[in-house]
Amino acid sequence: MKGYTIKEIKIGDNASFTKTVTETDVYNFAGVCGDFNPAHMDEVQAAQTPFKTRIAHGMLGASFISTVLGVHLPGPGTIYLGQELKFTKPVYFGDTVTATCTVSEINEEKNILILDTTVTNQDGDVVIKGKATVMPPR
Amino acid sequence: MKGYTIKEIKIGDNASFTKTVTETDVYNFAGVCGDFNPAHMDEVQAAQTPFKTRIAHGMLGASFISTVLGVHLPGPGTIYLGQELKFTKPVYFGDTVTATCTVSEINEEKNILILDTTVTNQDGDVVIKGKATVMPPR
Amino acid sequence: MKGYTIKEIKIGDNASFTKTVTETDVYNFAGVCGDFNPAHMDEVQAAQTPFKTRIAHGMLGASFISTVLGVHLPGPGTIYLGQELKFTKPVYFGDTVTATCTVSEINEEKNILILDTTVTNQDGDVVIKGKATVMPPR
Amino acid sequence: MKGYTIKEIKIGDNASFTKTVTETDVYNFAGVCGDFNPAHMDEVQAAQTPFKTRIAHGMLGASFISTVLGVHLPGPGTIYLGQELKFTKPVYFGDTVTATCTVSEINEEKNILILDTTVTNQDGDVVIKGKATVMPPR
Repeated sequence: MKGYTIKEIKIGDNASFTKTVTETDVYNFAGVCGDFNPAHMDEVQAAQTPFKTRIAHGMLGASFISTVLGVHLPGPGTIYLGQELKFTKPVYFGDTVTATCTVSEINEEKNILILDTTVTNQDGDVVIKGKATVMPPR
Repeated sequence: MKGYTIKEIKIGDNASFTKTVTETDVYNFAGVCGDFNPAHMDEVQAAQTPFKTRIAHGMLGASFISTVLGVHLPGPGTIYLGQELKFTKPVYFGDTVTATCTVSEINEEKNILILDTTVTNQDGDVVIKGKATVMPPR
Repeated sequence: MKGYTIKEIKIGDNASFTKTVTETDVYNFAGVCGDFNPAHMDEVQAAQTPFKTRIAHGMLGASFISTVLGVHLPGPGTIYLGQELKFTKPVYFGDTVTATCTVSEINEEKNILILDTTVTNQDGDVVIKGKATVMPPR
Repeated sequence: MKGYTIKEIKIGDNASFTKTVTETDVYNFAGVCGDFNPAHMDEVQAAQTPFKTRIAHGMLGASFISTVLGVHLPGPGTIYLGQELKFTKPVYFGDTVTATCTVSEINEEKNILILDTTVTNQDGDVVIKGKATVMPPR
């Protein structure tokens, strides 16, 4: 259970994580963070939004980026320093989303990596894009 | 159950949400997103990290920002467009964290707000800082 | 994060909370309290009841009254003293229920409020009615 | 999995259910109902209340009454008609509470029972008292 050190990583390396996002996920996520915005939890009110139905929390989609970083690339031992996120499309209940992280910059001296982070749905639409900054394990 | 429209909001308006972050939260969060990085889930391995014990996921702390935006300011009906995050200190199990969002820019024409987003712990240490971009309800 | 004091509250003040009640909610609720009555957890047996399918726990619907009282009116700091409940109709999985609390009596000397508490579904049917007794924060 | 019919029940019959209430229970309960009142979820703010620490939701304690009724007496098939509750003492994290229901009235014609409902802690203190009205299975 130890991730890649910076010397083992090169520009363009990438890893992904995929999950079908369910109503259960959204409800449990709300239960942890307390975000009971009716856009996520109230089908009647959500039906009147531009999205016509309840959608997942943006941060729930974003949390899969954390999964790629902490489990796969760089993996266990990674310290998360920062994240930029743009929520470009909604994630609907039942969507299968894939978070992909691709190494774009390596600062070996400071032991810091920057990765492009993209979350797409089953149709290939980008639902989140952004950049992560991490320290891989030494 | 409707949040504030852009006309009801002015620069400097702010709202907060506080929760004691527990092992339960971290485990439920991991159960949703799949980030089983041993830094969060393996006390034996975590004891050997710089933090000496398991810490909460950075994204779990960040999710409380979503709670402020979706429940309090602007509140129900808000659409989340983007978020920048810097994870400046760890959140330990048992820490009581407060997410605060403060309106810093208002673009009434595009119906877009920018808010400074800060998460602090019970000692006043900043654990996350960043900026949110949202569309308040019309 | 502090609720209304008794001096800030007047007869007729009211607040609501709405949530779509899902199978997830019912199963998580059962997991906490241990009420595994087949009416809630066994679709085969529930199909033979007057309700024809699994229904939510009455107390789950009632718990949303607690949410209104503890989060909105009077809000944070409220102490819950008592509750009367009549379960008038079942809550089905997928129903969107709204708990509404309306101040009906104010005893300023004892710092005690009585509120009418009603839970309705998306069709406006009353599923729970009753009365709450609370101490608002001082 | 079928409970007692009214003909099988006599005045004074009783049943109990006991559980140690944990932080996990309180957090999961809040996650279902949305009651993030700091009295339950914020140790820093709760330390300033008369109770000095976080306490369980009153309705969480009350939910164990539902467990007795739906699982034990009358048991599976019971329809819950009403409940009166007085929250007489707080339930602290780690308290072991016992809900006991004792049959006090039997209306065989209408198939309705009334039960005294009491929740006590490990010290024998009554934390909730009240009355339940139920229809046992036919």
